Amino acid sequence: MNFVRFLCLFSLFSITFSHETLNPHILPRPLILEYPDNTIETRLKELDEEVKLLCTSWRFAVEANNLGPWKTIPRECVEYVKDYVMGRGYRIDLERVSNEAGVYAKSVELDSDGKDAWVFDIDETLLSNLPYYQEHGYGLEIFDSVEFDKWVEKANAPAIESSLKLYEEVLGLGFKVFLLTGRSEKHRSITVDNLNNAGFQNWDKLILRSSDDHGKLATIYKSEKRSEMTEEGYRIHGNSGDQWSDLLGFSMSNRSFKLPNPMYYIP
Amino acid sequence: MNFVRFLCLFSLFSITFSHETLNPHILPRPLILEYPDNTIETRLKELDEEVKLLCTSWRFAVEANNLGPWKTIPRECVEYVKDYVMGRGYRIDLERVSNEAGVYAKSVELDSDGKDAWVFDIDETLLSNLPYYQEHGYGLEIFDSVEFDKWVEKANAPAIESSLKLYEEVLGLGFKVFLLTGRSEKHRSITVDNLNNAGFQNWDKLILRSSDDHGKLATIYKSEKRSEMTEEGYRIHGNSGDQWSDLLGFSMSNRSFKLPNPMYYIP
Repeated sequence: MNFVRFLCLFSLFSITFSHETLNPHILPRPLILEYPDNTIETRLKELDEEVKLLCTSWRFAVEANNLGPWKTIPRECVEYVKDYVMGRGYRIDLERVSNEAGVYAKSVELDSDGKDAWVFDIDETLLSNLPYYQEHGYGLEIFDSVEFDKWVEKANAPAIESSLKLYEEVLGLGFKVFLLTGRSEKHRSITVDNLNNAGFQNWDKLILRSSDDHGKLATIYKSEKRSEMTEEGYRIHGNSGDQWSDLLGFSMSNRSFKLPNPMYYIP
Repeated sequence: MNFVRFLCLFSLFSITFSHETLNPHILPRPLILEYPDNTIETRLKELDEEVKLLCTSWRFAVEANNLGPWKTIPRECVEYVKDYVMGRGYRIDLERVSNEAGVYAKSVELDSDGKDAWVFDIDETLLSNLPYYQEHGYGLEIFDSVEFDKWVEKANAPAIESSLKLYEEVLGLGFKVFLLTGRSEKHRSITVDNLNNAGFQNWDKLILRSSDDHGKLATIYKSEKRSEMTEEGYRIHGNSGDQWSDLLGFSMSNRSFKLPNPMYYIP
Protein backbone atom coordinates (compact mmCIF):
# COMPACT_ATOMS: atom_id res chain seq x y z
CA MET A 1 0.00 0.00 0.00
CA ASN A 2 2.81 2.41 0.92
CA PHE A 3 4.53 1.54 -2.30
CA VAL A 4 1.33 2.24 -4.23
CA ARG A 5 0.96 5.58 -2.47
CA PHE A 6 4.53 6.49 -3.22
CA LEU A 7 4.04 5.54 -6.86
CA CYS A 8 0.94 7.71 -7.08
CA LEU A 9 2.55 10.72 -5.50
CA PHE A 10 5.61 10.27 -7.66
CA SER A 11 3.45 9.95 -10.76
CA LEU A 12 1.40 13.02 -9.91
CA PHE A 13 4.56 15.02 -9.34
CA SER A 14 5.88 13.80 -12.66
CA ILE A 15 2.73 14.92 -14.46
CA THR A 16 2.85 18.31 -12.83
CA PHE A 17 6.46 18.72 -13.67
CA SER A 18 6.07 17.60 -17.26
CA HIS A 19 3.00 19.78 -17.80
CA GLU A 20 4.85 22.77 -16.49
CA THR A 21 7.65 21.99 -18.90
CA LEU A 22 5.13 21.78 -21.71
CA ASN A 23 3.38 25.06 -20.82
CA PRO A 24 5.86 27.28 -19.07
CA HIS A 25 3.62 30.35 -19.36
CA ILE A 26 0.66 29.09 -17.37
CA LEU A 27 0.46 30.72 -13.96
CA PRO A 28 1.52 28.38 -11.15
CA ARG A 29 -1.53 27.13 -9.27
CA PRO A 30 -1.62 25.63 -5.77
CA LEU A 31 -1.39 21.89 -6.20
CA ILE A 32 -4.04 20.10 -4.14
CA LEU A 33 -2.90 16.59 -3.45
CA GLU A 34 -5.80 14.65 -1.94
CA TYR A 35 -4.28 11.92 0.15
CA PRO A 36 -6.08 8.72 -0.90
CA ASP A 37 -6.95 7.83 2.73
CA ASN A 38 -9.57 10.57 2.79
CA THR A 39 -11.83 9.10 0.13
CA ILE A 40 -15.33 8.00 1.12
CA GLU A 41 -14.43 4.49 -0.01
CA THR A 42 -11.53 4.35 2.42
CA ARG A 43 -13.62 5.69 5.27
CA LEU A 44 -16.30 3.08 4.56
CA LYS A 45 -13.66 0.38 4.52
CA GLU A 46 -12.40 1.56 7.90
CA LEU A 47 -15.94 1.49 9.30
CA ASP A 48 -16.38 -1.99 7.87
CA GLU A 49 -13.18 -3.11 9.64
CA GLU A 50 -14.46 -1.58 12.87
CA VAL A 51 -17.79 -3.44 12.64
CA LYS A 52 -15.87 -6.65 11.92
CA LEU A 53 -13.67 -6.11 14.97
CA LEU A 54 -16.61 -5.46 17.30
CA CYS A 55 -18.73 -8.32 15.93
CA THR A 56 -15.78 -10.71 16.20
CA SER A 57 -15.46 -9.66 19.82
CA TRP A 58 -19.19 -10.24 20.32
CA ARG A 59 -18.91 -13.70 18.72
CA PHE A 60 -15.96 -14.52 20.96
CA ALA A 61 -18.04 -13.54 24.00
CA VAL A 62 -20.83 -15.85 22.77
CA GLU A 63 -18.52 -18.81 22.22
CA ALA A 64 -16.69 -18.33 25.52
CA ASN A 65 -20.03 -18.22 27.35
CA ASN A 66 -19.41 -14.73 28.68
CA LEU A 67 -22.79 -13.24 27.80
CA GLY A 68 -25.96 -13.33 29.78
CA PRO A 69 -29.06 -14.64 28.01
CA TRP A 70 -29.68 -12.86 24.69
CA LYS A 71 -32.72 -12.97 22.42
CA THR A 72 -31.41 -11.63 19.11
CA ILE A 73 -28.05 -10.89 17.58
CA PRO A 74 -26.87 -7.24 17.57
CA ARG A 75 -28.39 -5.42 14.59
CA GLU A 76 -24.94 -4.15 13.52
CA CYS A 77 -23.71 -7.74 13.26
CA VAL A 78 -26.32 -9.14 10.84
CA GLU A 79 -24.05 -8.88 7.79
CA TYR A 80 -21.13 -10.19 9.82
CA VAL A 81 -23.09 -13.23 11.04
CA LYS A 82 -24.42 -13.84 7.54
CA ASP A 83 -20.92 -13.69 6.04
CA TYR A 84 -19.65 -16.02 8.74
CA VAL A 85 -22.32 -18.74 8.58
CA MET A 86 -22.61 -18.63 4.77
CA GLY A 87 -18.87 -18.47 4.23
CA ARG A 88 -15.81 -20.54 5.01
CA GLY A 89 -15.40 -19.34 8.60
CA TYR A 90 -18.30 -21.39 9.95
CA ARG A 91 -17.37 -24.48 7.94
CA ILE A 92 -13.75 -24.32 9.08
CA ASP A 93 -14.82 -23.93 12.70
CA LEU A 94 -17.26 -26.85 12.41
CA GLU A 95 -14.58 -29.04 10.86
CA ARG A 96 -12.06 -28.12 13.51
CA VAL A 97 -14.35 -28.99 16.42
CA SER A 98 -15.24 -32.36 14.85
CA ASN A 99 -11.58 -33.11 14.18
CA GLU A 100 -10.65 -32.32 17.77
CA ALA A 101 -13.49 -34.50 19.02
CA GLY A 102 -12.36 -37.30 16.71
CA VAL A 103 -8.80 -37.12 18.02
CA TYR A 104 -10.09 -37.32 21.58
CA ALA A 105 -12.54 -40.16 20.79
CA LYS A 106 -9.71 -42.24 19.35
CA SER A 107 -7.63 -41.65 22.48
CA VAL A 108 -10.28 -43.10 24.81
CA GLU A 109 -9.69 -46.68 25.93
CA LEU A 110 -13.10 -48.29 25.75
CA ASP A 111 -14.18 -50.90 28.22
CA SER A 112 -15.79 -54.13 27.05
CA ASP A 113 -18.91 -53.47 29.17
CA GLY A 114 -20.49 -51.30 26.45
CA LYS A 115 -20.95 -48.37 28.82
CA ASP A 116 -18.72 -45.82 27.07
CA ALA A 117 -21.00 -43.09 25.77
CA TRP A 118 -21.00 -39.98 23.60
CA VAL A 119 -23.80 -37.42 23.70
CA PHE A 120 -24.84 -35.37 20.70
CA ASP A 121 -27.26 -32.49 20.61
CA ILE A 122 -29.29 -32.31 17.37
CA ASP A 123 -30.06 -28.77 16.13
CA GLU A 124 -26.98 -26.90 14.88
CA THR A 125 -24.96 -29.92 16.01
CA LEU A 126 -26.00 -32.85 13.80
CA LEU A 127 -28.65 -31.07 11.71
CA SER A 128 -28.38 -27.57 10.31
CA ASN A 129 -31.30 -25.16 10.46
CA LEU A 130 -29.37 -22.63 8.44
CA PRO A 131 -31.97 -22.70 5.61
CA TYR A 132 -34.55 -21.58 8.20
CA TYR A 133 -32.34 -18.86 9.68
CA GLN A 134 -31.45 -17.58 6.21
CA GLU A 135 -35.14 -16.75 5.87
CA HIS A 136 -35.30 -15.24 9.35
CA GLY A 137 -32.52 -12.70 9.56
CA TYR A 138 -29.71 -14.99 10.81
CA GLY A 139 -30.86 -14.52 14.37
CA LEU A 140 -32.01 -10.90 14.15
CA GLU A 141 -35.68 -11.90 14.41
CA ILE A 142 -37.03 -12.96 17.78
CA PHE A 143 -37.48 -16.74 17.87
CA ASP A 144 -40.92 -17.75 16.62
CA SER A 145 -41.70 -21.26 17.82
CA VAL A 146 -44.75 -21.61 15.51
CA GLU A 147 -42.72 -20.78 12.41
CA PHE A 148 -39.80 -22.90 13.57
CA ASP A 149 -42.09 -25.88 14.23
CA LYS A 150 -43.34 -25.65 10.65
CA TRP A 151 -39.74 -25.90 9.48
CA VAL A 152 -38.99 -28.82 11.83
CA GLU A 153 -42.06 -30.66 10.53
CA LYS A 154 -40.69 -30.57 6.99
CA ALA A 155 -37.90 -32.91 8.21
CA ASN A 156 -35.66 -31.24 5.67
CA ALA A 157 -32.77 -30.00 7.78
CA PRO A 158 -29.49 -31.06 6.16
CA ALA A 159 -26.66 -32.80 8.01
CA ILE A 160 -23.68 -30.82 9.19
CA GLU A 161 -21.23 -32.88 7.16
CA SER A 162 -18.30 -32.71 9.58
CA SER A 163 -20.61 -33.79 12.42
CA LEU A 164 -21.89 -36.75 10.39
CA LYS A 165 -18.28 -37.80 9.86
CA LEU A 166 -17.59 -37.57 13.61
CA TYR A 167 -20.85 -39.37 14.41
CA GLU A 168 -19.86 -42.33 12.25
CA GLU A 169 -16.34 -42.32 13.63
CA VAL A 170 -17.60 -42.40 17.21
CA LEU A 171 -20.05 -45.22 16.44
CA GLY A 172 -17.30 -47.11 14.62
CA LEU A 173 -15.06 -46.88 17.68
CA GLY A 174 -17.77 -48.59 19.75
CA PHE A 175 -19.24 -45.71 21.74
CA LYS A 176 -22.90 -45.80 22.65
CA VAL A 177 -24.46 -42.74 21.09
CA PHE A 178 -27.17 -40.74 22.86
CA LEU A 179 -29.01 -37.98 21.07
CA LEU A 180 -30.21 -35.43 23.60
CA THR A 181 -32.35 -32.69 22.15
CA GLY A 182 -34.52 -29.83 23.33
CA ARG A 183 -37.10 -30.83 20.71
CA SER A 184 -40.42 -31.98 22.03
CA GLU A 185 -41.54 -35.63 22.25
CA LYS A 186 -44.33 -34.79 19.80
CA HIS A 187 -41.64 -34.34 17.15
CA ARG A 188 -40.09 -37.77 17.70
CA SER A 189 -41.08 -39.41 14.45
CA ILE A 190 -40.40 -36.37 12.28
CA THR A 191 -37.00 -36.02 13.97
CA VAL A 192 -36.19 -39.68 13.31
CA ASP A 193 -37.18 -39.17 9.66
CA ASN A 194 -35.03 -36.07 9.37
CA LEU A 195 -32.04 -37.74 11.00
CA ASN A 196 -32.36 -40.76 8.72
CA ASN A 197 -32.80 -38.58 5.64
CA ALA A 198 -29.64 -36.74 6.59
CA GLY A 199 -27.68 -39.98 7.04
CA PHE A 200 -27.76 -40.50 10.81
CA GLN A 201 -28.50 -44.03 11.98
CA ASN A 202 -27.77 -46.57 14.69
CA TRP A 203 -27.96 -44.29 17.73
CA ASP A 204 -28.70 -45.99 21.01
CA LYS A 205 -31.24 -43.60 22.40
CA LEU A 206 -33.02 -40.49 21.20
CA ILE A 207 -34.08 -38.35 24.17
CA LEU A 208 -36.65 -35.58 23.62
CA ARG A 209 -38.41 -33.28 26.08
CA SER A 210 -41.37 -35.04 27.63
CA SER A 211 -44.28 -33.10 29.10
CA ASP A 212 -42.47 -33.23 32.48
CA ASP A 213 -39.48 -31.46 31.00
CA HIS A 214 -41.30 -28.53 29.44
CA GLY A 215 -40.50 -25.24 31.12
CA LYS A 216 -37.20 -26.50 32.49
CA LEU A 217 -34.04 -24.66 31.55
CA ALA A 218 -32.12 -26.65 28.93
CA THR A 219 -29.12 -26.82 31.27
CA ILE A 220 -31.25 -28.54 33.93
CA TYR A 221 -33.18 -30.80 31.56
CA LYS A 222 -30.02 -31.98 29.83
CA SER A 223 -28.08 -32.41 33.08
CA GLU A 224 -30.90 -34.53 34.50
CA LYS A 225 -30.89 -36.73 31.41
CA ARG A 226 -27.11 -37.14 31.56
CA SER A 227 -27.46 -37.91 35.24
CA GLU A 228 -29.85 -40.77 34.37
CA MET A 229 -27.22 -42.10 31.96
CA THR A 230 -24.48 -42.09 34.57
CA GLU A 231 -26.86 -43.71 37.08
CA GLU A 232 -27.31 -46.48 34.53
CA GLY A 233 -23.55 -46.90 34.58
CA TYR A 234 -22.64 -45.03 31.42
CA ARG A 235 -19.39 -43.10 31.30
CA ILE A 236 -19.95 -39.96 29.22
CA HIS A 237 -16.63 -39.27 27.54
CA GLY A 238 -17.65 -36.73 24.95
CA ASN A 239 -20.51 -34.29 24.50
CA SER A 240 -21.03 -32.29 21.31
CA GLY A 241 -23.36 -29.30 21.31
CA ASP A 242 -23.70 -25.79 19.93
CA GLN A 243 -25.07 -24.34 23.19
CA TRP A 244 -23.31 -24.12 26.53
CA SER A 245 -26.59 -25.40 28.02
CA ASP A 246 -25.83 -28.66 26.18
CA LEU A 247 -22.50 -28.96 27.93
CA LEU A 248 -22.58 -27.40 31.41
CA GLY A 249 -24.55 -28.18 34.56
CA PHE A 250 -24.07 -31.50 36.36
CA SER A 251 -23.10 -35.00 35.21
CA MET A 252 -20.87 -33.30 32.71
CA SER A 253 -18.91 -35.23 30.12
CA ASN A 254 -15.17 -35.72 30.38
CA ARG A 255 -14.56 -33.49 27.34
CA SER A 256 -17.05 -31.17 25.74
CA PHE A 257 -17.06 -29.89 22.19
CA LYS A 258 -18.71 -26.55 21.58
CA LEU A 259 -19.85 -26.12 18.01
CA PRO A 260 -20.11 -22.52 16.87
CA ASN A 261 -23.50 -20.83 16.85
CA PRO A 262 -23.69 -17.07 16.56
CA MET A 263 -27.43 -17.08 15.67
CA TYR A 264 -29.27 -17.95 18.85
CA TYR A 265 -28.91 -18.66 22.56
CA ILE A 266 -30.72 -21.27 24.66
CA PRO A 267 -30.36 -20.91 28.45
CA MET B 1 -8.28 0.77 -3.30
CA ASN B 2 -9.91 0.63 -6.73
CA PHE B 3 -9.85 4.37 -6.88
CA VAL B 4 -6.16 4.39 -5.96
CA ARG B 5 -5.46 1.80 -8.66
CA PHE B 6 -7.34 3.84 -11.21
CA LEU B 7 -5.45 6.95 -10.21
CA CYS B 8 -2.15 5.12 -10.56
CA LEU B 9 -2.97 3.69 -13.95
CA PHE B 10 -4.20 7.07 -15.10
CA SER B 11 -1.07 8.76 -13.79
CA LEU B 12 1.21 6.20 -15.43
CA PHE B 13 -0.60 6.68 -18.71
CA SER B 14 -0.20 10.40 -18.33
CA ILE B 15 3.54 10.10 -17.76
CA THR B 16 3.94 7.83 -20.73
CA PHE B 17 1.90 10.12 -22.87
CA SER B 18 3.64 13.30 -21.75
CA HIS B 19 7.08 11.75 -22.14
CA GLU B 20 6.21 10.69 -25.65
CA THR B 21 5.08 14.21 -26.34
CA LEU B 22 8.33 15.51 -24.99
CA ASN B 23 10.41 13.05 -26.99
CA PRO B 24 8.48 12.31 -30.16
CA HIS B 25 11.43 10.54 -31.78
CA ILE B 26 11.79 7.70 -29.28
CA LEU B 27 10.59 4.41 -30.77
CA PRO B 28 7.23 3.25 -29.43
CA ARG B 29 7.68 0.35 -27.03
CA PRO B 30 5.06 -2.24 -26.06
CA LEU B 31 3.41 -1.03 -22.89
CA ILE B 32 3.05 -3.89 -20.42
CA LEU B 33 0.22 -3.15 -18.04
CA GLU B 34 0.22 -5.75 -15.31
CA TYR B 35 -3.30 -5.94 -13.92
CA PRO B 36 -2.87 -5.24 -10.21
CA ASP B 37 -4.90 -8.32 -9.17
CA ASN B 38 -2.11 -10.57 -10.36
CA THR B 39 0.65 -8.85 -8.51
CA ILE B 40 2.68 -10.61 -5.87
CA GLU B 41 1.30 -8.06 -3.44
CA THR B 42 -2.26 -9.24 -4.10
CA ARG B 43 -1.32 -12.91 -3.76
CA LEU B 44 0.44 -12.17 -0.48
CA LYS B 45 -2.64 -10.33 0.70
CA GLU B 46 -4.79 -13.35 -0.11
CA LEU B 47 -2.43 -15.64 1.77
CA ASP B 48 -2.51 -13.21 4.66
CA GLU B 49 -6.34 -13.39 4.70
CA GLU B 50 -6.16 -17.20 4.69
CA VAL B 51 -3.76 -17.26 7.64
CA LYS B 52 -6.04 -14.82 9.46
CA LEU B 53 -9.06 -17.06 8.83
CA LEU B 54 -7.33 -20.20 10.07
CA CYS B 55 -5.77 -18.52 13.10
CA THR B 56 -9.10 -16.94 14.04
CA SER B 57 -10.59 -20.43 13.90
CA TRP B 58 -7.77 -21.71 16.10
CA ARG B 59 -8.31 -18.87 18.59
CA PHE B 60 -12.02 -19.65 18.79
CA ALA B 61 -11.24 -23.31 19.42
CA VAL B 62 -9.00 -22.17 22.29
CA GLU B 63 -11.60 -19.86 23.77
CA ALA B 64 -14.44 -22.39 23.45
CA ASN B 65 -12.28 -25.01 25.19
CA ASN B 66 -12.35 -27.35 22.22
CA LEU B 67 -8.64 -28.12 22.10
CA GLY B 68 -6.76 -30.76 23.99
CA PRO B 69 -3.72 -29.58 25.96
CA TRP B 70 -1.31 -27.56 23.83
CA LYS B 71 2.24 -26.43 24.61
CA THR B 72 2.88 -23.70 22.07
CA ILE B 73 0.83 -21.66 19.62
CA PRO B 74 0.87 -22.73 15.95
CA ARG B 75 3.96 -21.29 14.24
CA GLU B 76 1.80 -19.85 11.43
CA CYS B 77 -0.20 -17.85 13.98
CA VAL B 78 2.65 -15.95 15.67
CA GLU B 79 2.05 -12.72 13.75
CA TYR B 80 -1.70 -13.14 14.19
CA VAL B 81 -1.40 -13.59 17.96
CA LYS B 82 1.03 -10.69 18.16
CA ASP B 83 -1.32 -8.41 16.20
CA TYR B 84 -4.22 -9.50 18.39
CA VAL B 85 -2.63 -9.07 21.82
CA MET B 86 -0.76 -5.88 20.89
CA GLY B 87 -3.73 -4.39 19.06
CA ARG B 88 -7.28 -3.35 19.81
CA GLY B 89 -8.79 -6.85 19.50
CA TYR B 90 -7.45 -8.07 22.84
CA ARG B 91 -8.30 -4.83 24.63
CA ILE B 92 -11.85 -4.83 23.29
CA ASP B 93 -12.34 -8.46 24.31
CA LEU B 94 -10.96 -7.77 27.79
CA GLU B 95 -13.24 -4.78 28.20
CA ARG B 96 -16.28 -6.71 27.04
CA VAL B 97 -15.75 -9.58 29.48
CA SER B 98 -15.30 -7.15 32.39
CA ASN B 99 -18.39 -5.22 31.36
CA GLU B 100 -20.46 -8.41 31.19
CA ALA B 101 -19.15 -9.45 34.58
CA GLY B 102 -19.98 -6.02 35.98
CA VAL B 103 -23.55 -6.19 34.70
CA TYR B 104 -23.97 -9.61 36.29
CA ALA B 105 -22.34 -8.52 39.59
CA LYS B 106 -24.77 -5.61 39.87
CA SER B 107 -27.71 -7.97 39.30
CA VAL B 108 -26.82 -10.22 42.26
CA GLU B 109 -28.83 -9.62 45.42
CA LEU B 110 -26.27 -9.81 48.18
CA ASP B 111 -27.12 -11.25 51.55
CA SER B 112 -26.16 -9.43 54.74
CA ASP B 113 -24.15 -12.45 56.00
CA GLY B 114 -21.04 -11.37 54.05
CA LYS B 115 -20.77 -14.72 52.29
CA ASP B 116 -21.24 -13.56 48.71
CA ALA B 117 -17.97 -14.15 46.91
CA TRP B 118 -16.16 -13.47 43.65
CA VAL B 119 -13.05 -15.39 42.60
CA PHE B 120 -10.31 -13.86 40.47
CA ASP B 121 -7.35 -15.61 38.94
CA ILE B 122 -4.21 -13.45 38.79
CA ASP B 123 -2.00 -13.97 35.71
CA GLU B 124 -3.59 -12.72 32.48
CA THR B 125 -6.69 -11.94 34.57
CA LEU B 126 -5.71 -9.17 36.99
CA LEU B 127 -2.07 -8.82 36.02
CA SER B 128 -0.69 -8.88 32.50
CA ASN B 129 2.47 -10.80 31.63
CA LEU B 130 2.39 -9.46 28.11
CA PRO B 131 5.78 -7.71 28.55
CA TYR B 132 7.25 -11.16 29.28
CA TYR B 133 5.52 -12.88 26.35
CA GLN B 134 6.56 -10.09 24.00
CA GLU B 135 10.12 -11.18 24.71
CA HIS B 136 9.24 -14.88 24.34
CA GLY B 137 7.50 -15.23 21.02
CA TYR B 138 3.91 -14.62 22.18
CA GLY B 139 3.55 -18.26 23.16
CA LEU B 140 5.67 -19.82 20.41
CA GLU B 141 8.44 -20.70 22.88
CA ILE B 142 7.88 -23.62 25.21
CA PHE B 143 7.15 -22.33 28.72
CA ASP B 144 10.34 -21.85 30.71
CA SER B 145 9.51 -21.74 34.40
CA VAL B 146 12.99 -20.48 35.38
CA GLU B 147 12.77 -17.51 33.03
CA PHE B 148 9.16 -16.84 33.96
CA ASP B 149 9.99 -16.91 37.69
CA LYS B 150 12.63 -14.24 37.09
CA TRP B 151 9.94 -12.07 35.51
CA VAL B 152 7.48 -12.77 38.35
CA GLU B 153 10.15 -11.80 40.91
CA LYS B 154 10.46 -8.36 39.37
CA ALA B 155 6.87 -7.70 40.55
CA ASN B 156 6.46 -5.48 37.51
CA ALA B 157 3.44 -6.99 35.78
CA PRO B 158 0.99 -4.20 34.94
CA ALA B 159 -2.72 -4.32 35.75
CA ILE B 160 -5.22 -5.26 33.09
CA GLU B 161 -7.08 -1.98 33.38
CA SER B 162 -10.57 -3.31 32.61
CA SER B 163 -10.06 -6.03 35.24
CA LEU B 164 -8.97 -3.48 37.83
CA LYS B 165 -12.17 -1.57 37.12
CA LEU B 166 -14.27 -4.72 37.59
CA TYR B 167 -12.30 -5.65 40.71
CA GLU B 168 -13.10 -2.33 42.34
CA GLU B 169 -16.72 -2.51 41.22
CA VAL B 170 -17.14 -5.98 42.73
CA LEU B 171 -15.51 -4.90 46.01
CA GLY B 172 -17.69 -1.78 46.05
CA LEU B 173 -20.81 -3.89 45.71
CA GLY B 174 -19.83 -5.80 48.85
CA PHE B 175 -18.56 -9.10 47.46
CA LYS B 176 -15.80 -10.91 49.28
CA VAL B 177 -12.92 -11.19 46.85
CA PHE B 178 -10.75 -14.31 46.67
CA LEU B 179 -7.62 -14.36 44.57
CA LEU B 180 -6.91 -17.93 43.50
CA THR B 181 -3.66 -18.35 41.61
CA GLY B 182 -1.46 -21.14 40.33
CA ARG B 183 1.57 -19.19 41.59
CA SER B 184 3.56 -20.84 44.32
CA GLU B 185 3.37 -19.94 48.01
CA LYS B 186 7.06 -18.92 47.83
CA HIS B 187 5.95 -16.01 45.64
CA ARG B 188 3.40 -14.69 48.12
CA SER B 189 5.14 -11.50 49.14
CA ILE B 190 6.32 -10.62 45.63
CA THR B 191 2.79 -11.25 44.37
CA VAL B 192 1.31 -9.00 47.05
CA ASP B 193 3.83 -6.30 46.09
CA ASN B 194 3.00 -6.64 42.41
CA LEU B 195 -0.75 -6.55 43.05
CA ASN B 196 -0.40 -3.47 45.23
CA ASN B 197 1.89 -1.75 42.73
CA ALA B 198 -0.71 -2.38 40.06
CA GLY B 199 -3.52 -0.94 42.19
CA PHE B 200 -5.17 -4.07 43.65
CA GLN B 201 -6.02 -3.91 47.35
CA ASN B 202 -8.51 -5.08 49.94
CA TRP B 203 -8.95 -8.66 48.79
CA ASP B 204 -10.19 -11.08 51.42
CA LYS B 205 -7.87 -13.97 50.75
CA LEU B 206 -4.94 -14.66 48.45
CA ILE B 207 -4.64 -18.38 47.80
CA LEU B 208 -1.40 -19.73 46.30
CA ARG B 209 -0.24 -23.30 45.65
CA SER B 210 1.16 -24.82 48.83
CA SER B 211 3.63 -27.69 48.69
CA ASP B 212 0.63 -30.07 48.92
CA ASP B 213 -0.83 -28.61 45.75
CA HIS B 214 2.23 -28.92 43.55
CA GLY B 215 1.79 -31.45 40.78
CA LYS B 216 -1.99 -31.18 40.85
CA LEU B 217 -3.80 -30.19 37.69
CA ALA B 218 -4.94 -26.57 37.96
CA THR B 219 -8.56 -27.68 37.48
CA ILE B 220 -8.32 -29.94 40.54
CA TYR B 221 -6.32 -27.55 42.70
CA LYS B 222 -8.66 -24.66 41.98
CA SER B 223 -11.81 -26.77 42.39
CA GLU B 224 -10.57 -27.97 45.78
CA LYS B 225 -9.94 -24.43 46.91
CA ARG B 226 -13.38 -23.31 45.73
CA SER B 227 -14.82 -26.31 47.49
CA GLU B 228 -13.21 -25.12 50.76
CA MET B 229 -14.88 -21.74 50.22
CA THR B 230 -18.32 -23.24 49.73
CA GLU B 231 -17.77 -25.47 52.77
CA GLU B 232 -17.11 -22.28 54.75
CA GLY B 233 -20.50 -21.08 53.56
CA TYR B 234 -19.45 -18.80 50.75
CA ARG B 235 -21.64 -18.50 47.67
CA ILE B 236 -19.38 -18.08 44.65
CA HIS B 237 -21.36 -15.94 42.24
CA GLY B 238 -18.68 -14.97 39.76
CA ASN B 239 -15.31 -16.34 38.71
CA SER B 240 -12.96 -14.50 36.36
CA GLY B 241 -10.10 -16.34 34.71
CA ASP B 242 -8.22 -16.62 31.44
CA GLN B 243 -7.97 -20.44 31.56
CA TRP B 244 -10.83 -22.93 31.50
CA SER B 245 -8.98 -24.66 34.35
CA ASP B 246 -9.79 -21.56 36.42
CA LEU B 247 -13.49 -22.02 35.74
CA LEU B 248 -14.41 -25.69 35.31
CA GLY B 249 -14.23 -28.72 37.61
CA PHE B 250 -16.35 -28.83 40.76
CA SER B 251 -17.72 -26.18 43.14
CA MET B 252 -18.12 -24.00 40.08
CA SER B 253 -19.31 -20.42 40.29
CA ASN B 254 -22.77 -19.39 39.25
CA ARG B 255 -21.41 -17.43 36.27
CA SER B 256 -17.92 -17.67 34.87
CA PHE B 257 -16.07 -15.06 32.85
CA LYS B 258 -13.42 -16.32 30.46
CA LEU B 259 -10.83 -13.70 29.65
CA PRO B 260 -9.08 -14.20 26.32
CA ASN B 261 -5.66 -15.82 26.25
CA PRO B 262 -4.28 -17.10 22.96
CA MET B 263 -0.71 -17.39 24.29
CA TYR B 264 -0.69 -20.37 26.63
CA TYR B 265 -2.74 -23.21 28.03
CA ILE B 266 -2.82 -24.55 31.59
CA PRO B 267 -4.60 -27.90 32.09
